[in-house]
Amino acid sequence: MTERAVVLGAGSWGTAFAKVLGDAGNQVTIWSRRPEVADAINERHVNPDYLPQTRLPDQVDATSDAASAIRGADLVVLAVPSQTLRSNLAEWRDLIGPAATLISLMKGIELGTTRRMSEVICEVAGVEQDRVVVVSGPNLAPEIAQEQPAATVVACSDPGRATLVQKSMTTRYLRPYTNDDVIGCELGGAVKNVIALAYGMAAALGFGDNTRATLVTRGLAETARLGVALGADPLTFAGLAGLGDLVATCASPLSRNRSFGERLGRGETLEQAQAATRQTAEGVKSCLSIRDLARKHEVEMPITEQVERVCHEGVDPQAALVALMSRETKPE
Amino acid sequence: MTERAVVLGAGSWGTAFAKVLGDAGNQVTIWSRRPEVADAINERHVNPDYLPQTRLPDQVDATSDAASAIRGADLVVLAVPSQTLRSNLAEWRDLIGPAATLISLMKGIELGTTRRMSEVICEVAGVEQDRVVVVSGPNLAPEIAQEQPAATVVACSDPGRATLVQKSMTTRYLRPYTNDDVIGCELGGAVKNVIALAYGMAAALGFGDNTRATLVTRGLAETARLGVALGADPLTFAGLAGLGDLVATCASPLSRNRSFGERLGRGETLEQAQAATRQTAEGVKSCLSIRDLARKHEVEMPITEQVERVCHEGVDPQAALVALMSRETKPE
Repeated sequence: MTERAVVLGAGSWGTAFAKVLGDAGNQVTIWSRRPEVADAINERHVNPDYLPQTRLPDQVDATSDAASAIRGADLVVLAVPSQTLRSNLAEWRDLIGPAATLISLMKGIELGTTRRMSEVICEVAGVEQDRVVVVSGPNLAPEIAQEQPAATVVACSDPGRATLVQKSMTTRYLRPYTNDDVIGCELGGAVKNVIALAYGMAAALGFGDNTRATLVTRGLAETARLGVALGADPLTFAGLAGLGDLVATCASPLSRNRSFGERLGRGETLEQAQAATRQTAEGVKSCLSIRDLARKHEVEMPITEQVERVCHEGVDPQAALVALMSRETKPE
Repeated sequence: MTERAVVLGAGSWGTAFAKVLGDAGNQVTIWSRRPEVADAINERHVNPDYLPQTRLPDQVDATSDAASAIRGADLVVLAVPSQTLRSNLAEWRDLIGPAATLISLMKGIELGTTRRMSEVICEVAGVEQDRVVVVSGPNLAPEIAQEQPAATVVACSDPGRATLVQKSMTTRYLRPYTNDDVIGCELGGAVKNVIALAYGMAAALGFGDNTRATLVTRGLAETARLGVALGADPLTFAGLAGLGDLVATCASPLSRNRSFGERLGRGETLEQAQAATRQTAEGVKSCLSIRDLARKHEVEMPITEQVERVCHEGVDPQAALVALMSRETKPE
């Protein structure tokens, strides 16, 4: 099935996802804010800022003019930073066709409103949730770009639309599985960034694999607790969009959140780590909104609380991890 | 609470566990088959074969005479190779006191009978299952020996006995959590060795973190499917004895099963890998009994099936992994 797709955002995952859609036979346009990136993609089939080693398929072109790209698109893929989605989408909403499917690649919770990305999409674009599809799973973009075999989850409250997106993005190297639990998939994707920050701190401080595996286990447990309070299916967290994404993000040296956590663990301040990486890892922002969401629903999230304290209240990472590991013994 | 404990088996985990019991204030005797190991522990407080860097506490001594050590012990810790438990325990059963608690550290399923270790203990020692406690979790022995902070699960059908063992092994660096799901804890510990073999093969063959995280996710799913068929609580697999142990074993270069899988992935035959490591990784044996158990209960375990084919039927690891990653797309 060939669709006309636009990928809004030329970051690492947006670019790799455009390749996936192109390899699956769709006609794809990447929108980049910066004209020079669009020019490079059109002239050399490469995004020079992200994945410079990856040749994009011929069915992928690029533009810096969002209007021309969005008009007529069957699939509108949102791949902008989580905290800028609201303002970006406000400019684009009138261009989106009435039958188009909106696909979210974003992993975060909006600061202030504590809304999930699909909630922001529905609110700002004025669409029903059955038109919004969330893609989430163990999908480190550089590995997808290298065509390493991977699997992912395509979640939508409308099973027909999930299947449509599944078919339009199935390739030799990426297998999408459908799911109707949008809340669970979005929470798995957002909270894993926070847990990966804690994992990075633990790694940098010399804690071993026993400690790190305990962090992963408890991190998934607190994600599931919050998810269940919000109406998610607990089984989602045992799947690719929960456990799978969390394990890949914690294990990979390519993960920005894990690497950022390592910097904090080595004693850098938030400002130093931001200056060195020229960006803020998503989990640094999301730990605030996830903590707020947890408090609103009276859910205990001790790892998220400690990460927030390290990132925003100057607590020492070693002290935060020791506090986490020395909670009272009790039935599991 | 001070107990008299005997640890039967002077391997890596038995030795580290003796240190834990000693650090928790118990009087501990390690039984080693080889008198020279017992002598070294008594003279130098070190097990020269395993954990030679670790000084054992003064409350730990050793012997090669099992009878003297088992008589009068409140805690009888079984830490012998899974497939020799039956014959070892047959020699020891008449020495075990009528009130003693039997603790299993073993991770495996008996070949031929497809029995779990606690089932073999009850059968051979002629005790009820409420006297058998299973300890399992993300507990790489060298890290426990170094006093890295860790947590573990103490499972028994009798909550009082689980709490007694929990108290007798709580130290500054190891936190035990009680659980009543013996079946789930034992299966988590046994199947994770098989999944770690697959993980090692994938790592050696250059598959990235997306593929590996998918293996971990699906590995835990097939473990839980078998567990539920056998009467385990599905939640156990999301905890330290399921997910936690699996993640630690797959992540760690110290894991024998992962390392053995890497050898197979690099193209060594089973015989070459066995010769090089002078032992057989537990998962190489258990994949046979776990596959048999799965077939008996009509549970699909595709990763275990492929590991068995690689280990015992000469199937190429690359072909096995590609077969695993290219199953039909469907709802997750």
